[in-house]
Amino acid sequence: MNIMIAGLGLIGGSMTLALKTAGIQSDGFDREDVLSYALQENMIARAARDFMEYDVVFVALPPKAAVRFLTENSFKKGAVVADVCGVKGAIERAVSDKPRDYRYVGCHPMAGKEVSGIRNADASLFRGASMILVENDRTDPAAAETIAALSVSMGFGRVIRCDSDYHDAKIAYTSQLAHIVSNAYVKSPTADGYRGYTGGSFQDMTRIAGVDEKLWTDLFSANREKILYELRLLISELGEYERALSAGDDKALEALLRAGRLKKEELDRQKRL
Amino acid sequence: MNIMIAGLGLIGGSMTLALKTAGIQSDGFDREDVLSYALQENMIARAARDFMEYDVVFVALPPKAAVRFLTENSFKKGAVVADVCGVKGAIERAVSDKPRDYRYVGCHPMAGKEVSGIRNADASLFRGASMILVENDRTDPAAAETIAALSVSMGFGRVIRCDSDYHDAKIAYTSQLAHIVSNAYVKSPTADGYRGYTGGSFQDMTRIAGVDEKLWTDLFSANREKILYELRLLISELGEYERALSAGDDKALEALLRAGRLKKEELDRQKRL
Repeated sequence: MNIMIAGLGLIGGSMTLALKTAGIQSDGFDREDVLSYALQENMIARAARDFMEYDVVFVALPPKAAVRFLTENSFKKGAVVADVCGVKGAIERAVSDKPRDYRYVGCHPMAGKEVSGIRNADASLFRGASMILVENDRTDPAAAETIAALSVSMGFGRVIRCDSDYHDAKIAYTSQLAHIVSNAYVKSPTADGYRGYTGGSFQDMTRIAGVDEKLWTDLFSANREKILYELRLLISELGEYERALSAGDDKALEALLRAGRLKKEELDRQKRL
Repeated sequence: MNIMIAGLGLIGGSMTLALKTAGIQSDGFDREDVLSYALQENMIARAARDFMEYDVVFVALPPKAAVRFLTENSFKKGAVVADVCGVKGAIERAVSDKPRDYRYVGCHPMAGKEVSGIRNADASLFRGASMILVENDRTDPAAAETIAALSVSMGFGRVIRCDSDYHDAKIAYTSQLAHIVSNAYVKSPTADGYRGYTGGSFQDMTRIAGVDEKLWTDLFSANREKILYELRLLISELGEYERALSAGDDKALEALLRAGRLKKEELDRQKRL
């Protein structure tokens, strides 16, 4: 099985390293300087030249570049081609709009770091994490199985299956909204000189504030409606606390905090199930 | 030096354990059941009966209870009495409003856990953390030095000094606002079934969501204006992202994300200094 990984950034680079750890070689495709580094570090077997050679292709590029890569190139007939973008509906629609010979599988590795690029690639990045496989009625079961099996080889702890709509709704909330909140949170002038004035809450709240603005604008713009739904909901929730505080209504404030605590406890119970 | 700790919850209990680890015994004051537990576990030397016996008193109670404790009891003349509340201006004002024989020092240990109570007390809770000492022109330097020295014995990594206004402004932002955001964040219906759909961002964002609503209402209500300032600022910042997304204005969205990333990088630089 010939495997190629297009895009050797943090995710693609970590995939090639994780596969190598499992004894599975892959070829890589990227800019010349990235390829030189990948070859020099023995991360990839070869630089991929002819995409028609590959049975499995992982596309680890940002959304717009991934769509171009998937729709402007030809692949071996029946090849399993999987993109790893953080939004799935937009990619799925773009791929479905064009006739194709390959078997498309959308996936999303639930792992990352606050740093990017091949130099931060890490063979153990996916250890224990979820791999989400996004399926629709055109998904080939054998192709999805191939990606699931390779995911296990890469160290993923479990493989979850859902459709792109469910995926995009969950991700808008668990990841995309969190990045917006974190990015907005640091902007208060009070942040300067915060050192010493935190026990960890501030660091957790702002760990992911430093987003790559081009990549994340691309991701957000491919999932606009679902992010807007969550963002408006959160702004409206925060408005409730603002009103209770501003009215000096401690009873209302306590009720708001209690509802949040109970919800958090319910989520923690779900986690333990 | 006789030391008493009033309130043997997570913070007071951890203080008595941390002092004990440093070879310093303290007596405790709390409800009978808590005292029994503390005695049985050898956390305290004795249950404190007569407050006049003590040279140093730590008041580890929620704000309203701390104010009552500080203003309704008598202490040895010249005793160092320090409260550890998360808000300082309101306590300082309440203490200053009454004539007193003791030397008051406001302090705030920058450490905590998502759990509370004596059973979660931990001798190493303060290891490497900041202890904030809040000073004003009535603060006795020798009393502040006593608390600073005991803080070092408890394992604190550094002692920071500021006035209550500065403290309350910083804490409104680094801690109190973070608890509100986290508490509000979990309320989206999308949170149900989040398992598998996160790589850690969601967990970090919501780690502190499960606040004790009575304690935190008490804390918030003692620092209302400063929290309102930060909360309104954040709601207004989030509104900017909402407008950019809703207008499909990717340029504006990218500029917002870029500003947040640059600010985060600046804060990380401050941290390294």
